[in-house]
Amino acid sequence: MTLQSGQPTNASNSITIRLKLGHETQILAKITTTVSDLGGNIGAIDIAKAGKDYLLRDFTIDTSGEKHIEQILDGIAGIDGVEIINYSDRTFLLHLGGKIEVTSKTPLKTRDQLSMAYTPGVARICEAITKRPSDAFKLTIKRNTVAIISDGTAVLGLGDIGPEGAMPVMEGKAMLFKEFAGVDAFPICLSTKDTDEIVQTVKHISPGFGGVNLEDISAPRCFEIERRLQEELDIPIFHDDQHGTAVVLTAAFINAMKLIDKKYDDLKVVFAGVGAAGDACTKMLLNLGVKNIIGCDRKGALTRDRDDLNSAKRAYAEITNPNQEAGTLKEVVRGADVFVGLSAPNLLDEADVAAMAHDSIVFAMSNPIPEVMPEIALKHAKVVATGRSDYPNQINNVLCFPGIFRGALDCQASCINEEMKLAAAMAIAESIDDEVLTPDYIVPSVFNTEVVPQVAEAVVEAAIKTGVARRTKSPHED
Amino acid sequence: MTLQSGQPTNASNSITIRLKLGHETQILAKITTTVSDLGGNIGAIDIAKAGKDYLLRDFTIDTSGEKHIEQILDGIAGIDGVEIINYSDRTFLLHLGGKIEVTSKTPLKTRDQLSMAYTPGVARICEAITKRPSDAFKLTIKRNTVAIISDGTAVLGLGDIGPEGAMPVMEGKAMLFKEFAGVDAFPICLSTKDTDEIVQTVKHISPGFGGVNLEDISAPRCFEIERRLQEELDIPIFHDDQHGTAVVLTAAFINAMKLIDKKYDDLKVVFAGVGAAGDACTKMLLNLGVKNIIGCDRKGALTRDRDDLNSAKRAYAEITNPNQEAGTLKEVVRGADVFVGLSAPNLLDEADVAAMAHDSIVFAMSNPIPEVMPEIALKHAKVVATGRSDYPNQINNVLCFPGIFRGALDCQASCINEEMKLAAAMAIAESIDDEVLTPDYIVPSVFNTEVVPQVAEAVVEAAIKTGVARRTKSPHED
Repeated sequence: MTLQSGQPTNASNSITIRLKLGHETQILAKITTTVSDLGGNIGAIDIAKAGKDYLLRDFTIDTSGEKHIEQILDGIAGIDGVEIINYSDRTFLLHLGGKIEVTSKTPLKTRDQLSMAYTPGVARICEAITKRPSDAFKLTIKRNTVAIISDGTAVLGLGDIGPEGAMPVMEGKAMLFKEFAGVDAFPICLSTKDTDEIVQTVKHISPGFGGVNLEDISAPRCFEIERRLQEELDIPIFHDDQHGTAVVLTAAFINAMKLIDKKYDDLKVVFAGVGAAGDACTKMLLNLGVKNIIGCDRKGALTRDRDDLNSAKRAYAEITNPNQEAGTLKEVVRGADVFVGLSAPNLLDEADVAAMAHDSIVFAMSNPIPEVMPEIALKHAKVVATGRSDYPNQINNVLCFPGIFRGALDCQASCINEEMKLAAAMAIAESIDDEVLTPDYIVPSVFNTEVVPQVAEAVVEAAIKTGVARRTKSPHED
Repeated sequence: MTLQSGQPTNASNSITIRLKLGHETQILAKITTTVSDLGGNIGAIDIAKAGKDYLLRDFTIDTSGEKHIEQILDGIAGIDGVEIINYSDRTFLLHLGGKIEVTSKTPLKTRDQLSMAYTPGVARICEAITKRPSDAFKLTIKRNTVAIISDGTAVLGLGDIGPEGAMPVMEGKAMLFKEFAGVDAFPICLSTKDTDEIVQTVKHISPGFGGVNLEDISAPRCFEIERRLQEELDIPIFHDDQHGTAVVLTAAFINAMKLIDKKYDDLKVVFAGVGAAGDACTKMLLNLGVKNIIGCDRKGALTRDRDDLNSAKRAYAEITNPNQEAGTLKEVVRGADVFVGLSAPNLLDEADVAAMAHDSIVFAMSNPIPEVMPEIALKHAKVVATGRSDYPNQINNVLCFPGIFRGALDCQASCINEEMKLAAAMAIAESIDDEVLTPDYIVPSVFNTEVVPQVAEAVVEAAIKTGVARRTKSPHED
C-alpha cells in the first residue's frame, strides 16, 4: 500500500517542517513556490518563534510519499537564507504511544468512590452476576464492548505482517467503532496462526465481550475460525473483511440497480477474486435474488468440473455459475451486467468494459489500484465504484461495521445473521433518497452521521424478528 | 464479603430514596430521626421537584447492607404523609453498563484525520513495526497497556465465582491503574481454569500488551501459571495477589521495625496462611534478611517432616522454620515477634497476642474480619495493621501495583524481578518520613499522590541496575 510517485498528495503523507528564516526579501514566496513546483501541497504556515533577526516557521505540507518528502526537503535546503531545523512525519507523530486509551467512566478520588467501584462494594455486584449471569450484560462492560481479533495475516494490502505490525490497524478500527457508533472496542492481536489455537483463544477470552470482530485473517482459515466460533459462542462473531465488505457492496448494488432497467433474475455478475470478501459478497447477492454469478480466480471461471480447486472454491463452484461457463476472466466478463473486482490492479482494460452488456456496473475494489481505473471504465459503464476515497462511490466497510455492532449490542444479539446483514445493507442503501441518487452517488459518505443509527435500528429490528435478540427494550429503560 | 448486620454504615451500601412529601409539620425531622434511629447515615437531601402541594426529595443514605436497607425503607414507609416513589442502590447504579471505556486519543472527524489514523496512512506505521518489531513499544498502545487476567477462581472473599462474576473487580482494577498511575489496563476474564490453557491464552494475546497483571487466580495453579508465563514472555508478568500484597506488607514491616529496637536476624515471624499471598510475603521477608519464619496452615506449623503437604507447601517448608518448630498456630505464635495473618477471621485471641514477645507486631489481614481485631491486639502489641480501611495502617495493594507497572512500562522492563519489588517496598516505606512515623501510621494513604511516582522511579532504577530495562531515557525524549 505504499503510495507510488505520481500519486496525489495526501494528509496521510504530510510532514511538518520547522524552518529558520533570515530576513531575505521574498523568502516566504521562494519557499512556497519551491514546494509548489515540486508538487507539495502546503496546508498551514505557523510562526513558532520570532527572534531578533530570524523567524522560526512551521510548514505543514501534504506529499505523495517518502521519496516526495526527500525531494521537497532537498528543494527547501537549496534556498538561500533557509535552515531546516527539523521535520516530523505527522502520521508517525499521531501514532506515538498508540491511538486509544482505557478510561474510567467515574472518578476515583475519594474513599466513598473507591468503596463503591472497588472493594467492598464491588463484591455485591460480583455476587449479583454470579447469581444471574445474564446480568453481566447490565453491570459490566460486556454490554458495549467488542474484541477486535487479528492474527495479522492479511493486513490491508501488506499481507502477513504479524500481530505487532497489525496493531495500528486494529487500534484505528477501535477508534472508528467509538467515534462512529459509541462502541468500546479493544484490539487483541494474536501470536498464533493456527486455526484451533485461534478458536480456543477467542473462546477463552470471550466472557467479558458482547461481540467479536474478526479482522484481517487470511482465507481459507478465516472461514473455519468464524464458523466454529459462531457455533460455540453465544455472542456475535463477524469477520469484517468478509461481511462488512459484502454489506456495503450489496448496498451499492441495490442503489446502482435502481438506476438501471434490469431485473436481478436476469443479471450476469462476474467476480474477480473469490477469497474471503468475494465469497461473502457472492452469498449476499445470491440471497438478494441474483441467479447467475460467475467467480473467477487467476486461472479463470470456477466451474464444477475444475479439478484444481481447494475446498472453499469447490463449495463456491457448487452454488454459482449455473450455466457452467468456462474461460478466462476476460472471456466470461463479455456480456456481463455487473463486474465485482476484489483481486488485483488493472485486470481489465477498456475493451473488456466495452464488451460488457449495455448499462453495465463496475465495482473495482482492489486497493489502492483498482481492477480498472474509473476514468476508463466510465467510458462504457453506467455506474463505477471503487475502494478509494478520491473517486466517487467508495465501498468502505466503515459504513457497515459500526452500525451493525451498535445494533447487535443494543439488542444483545446472540449472532449477526443473514437477515441482519441484509437489513444493514438496505439501511445503507436507503440512506440516499431516490431523488438524489445518481450514478456517482450510490453510497453515502462515511461522515454521514445518519447512517449508523439507521443501520443499527434496522439490525435490531431484524434481530428481534429472527429471534436472536436477547433484549427488546431500549437501553435506557432499565 | 457480605457485610453483617452490626457492621458500620458505608457508601458501598448507600441508597438514594425518592420520597413524595406532603406539607405535614416536621415531616423532614420525622424522616431524619427515623433513619438515624435505625442506624442509617444521611449523606445528602436534594429537592427533585416542587409540586403545588407536595415536594419530591431524594435522600442519600449510607447503610450497613441489604437487611439494613429493608429496615430503613420499612421505617420510612410507616411515617404519615410520606410516599416512597422509588429507591436505587448507588453501587448498582454506578456499575450500569460497566465502569471503563475505550476512547480515541485524537478525533476522527475529517477525511485527513481518517487518512492518518486509518487507511492509507496507517500502512506506513504497520510497515515500520514489521521492519523493527521493537517499534511496537513506540507506535502502538503496547507502551502503556497492561492486560488484567483472571479466571475468577479466587475473587475477593467470594472464591470461585467464574469469569463473568469477576469482571466488576477487574474493571475496578483497570480504573485504579488509570486513575492512580495513568496506565491503560484492560480486563480479560477467562472461561477456563486449566493451567495449560491459561498459559497458552495469555501467550497468544500478549503481542499488544506491555505487561500482564494476573489477578484472583487460586493457588497452587497461580504459581505455575506465573512462572511459565515469566519464562516464555518478555514482558512483566505480575500476580498481584502474591506480589502486590508482599510489597505493601514488606513496606509496612520495614516501617514497623523502625519503631522497635530489634534486629531482622533475631526475629521470629509466624505466618497464618501460606497460600499465594503468604508464600510471596514470606519470600520477600526472607530476601530482606529475616531468618526465622514459621508458616502455619490449618493444622499448624509447616515442618520438613510433615507428610501431608502438597508440593507448594513442601517447597515452603524447605526454606523456612530453621528450628523445625512444630505445633498449632497458637503454640508457635508464643514468643513470636511478628504475626502475619493471611487466612481467616478470629484465629487469635487476646491471650495469644499477650503471649507474643514484647513490642510485637501484628499484621491481621484477613478481610473483612481480621485474625484478631485491632482493638484487642493493641492491648499487647506495639504495632497493628489490617486490610481494612476503617482502621489505621491499611495494607492495600493499591499502594503497589499502579506504581510498579508505571515504572515497568516506562523503562520497557522485560520482567518485574525481586530487586524491583524490593525497591517498590522501600519507596512505599520511605514515603513516610521518620519524624512522622508512629505505630498507627506505618503505611501511606492510598490517596497520597506522591507514592506512585516515587515507586515508579525506584522501580525504573532497579530495572536499569539489574539489566532488565529496554529503555533508559525518559518517555518524553523520543
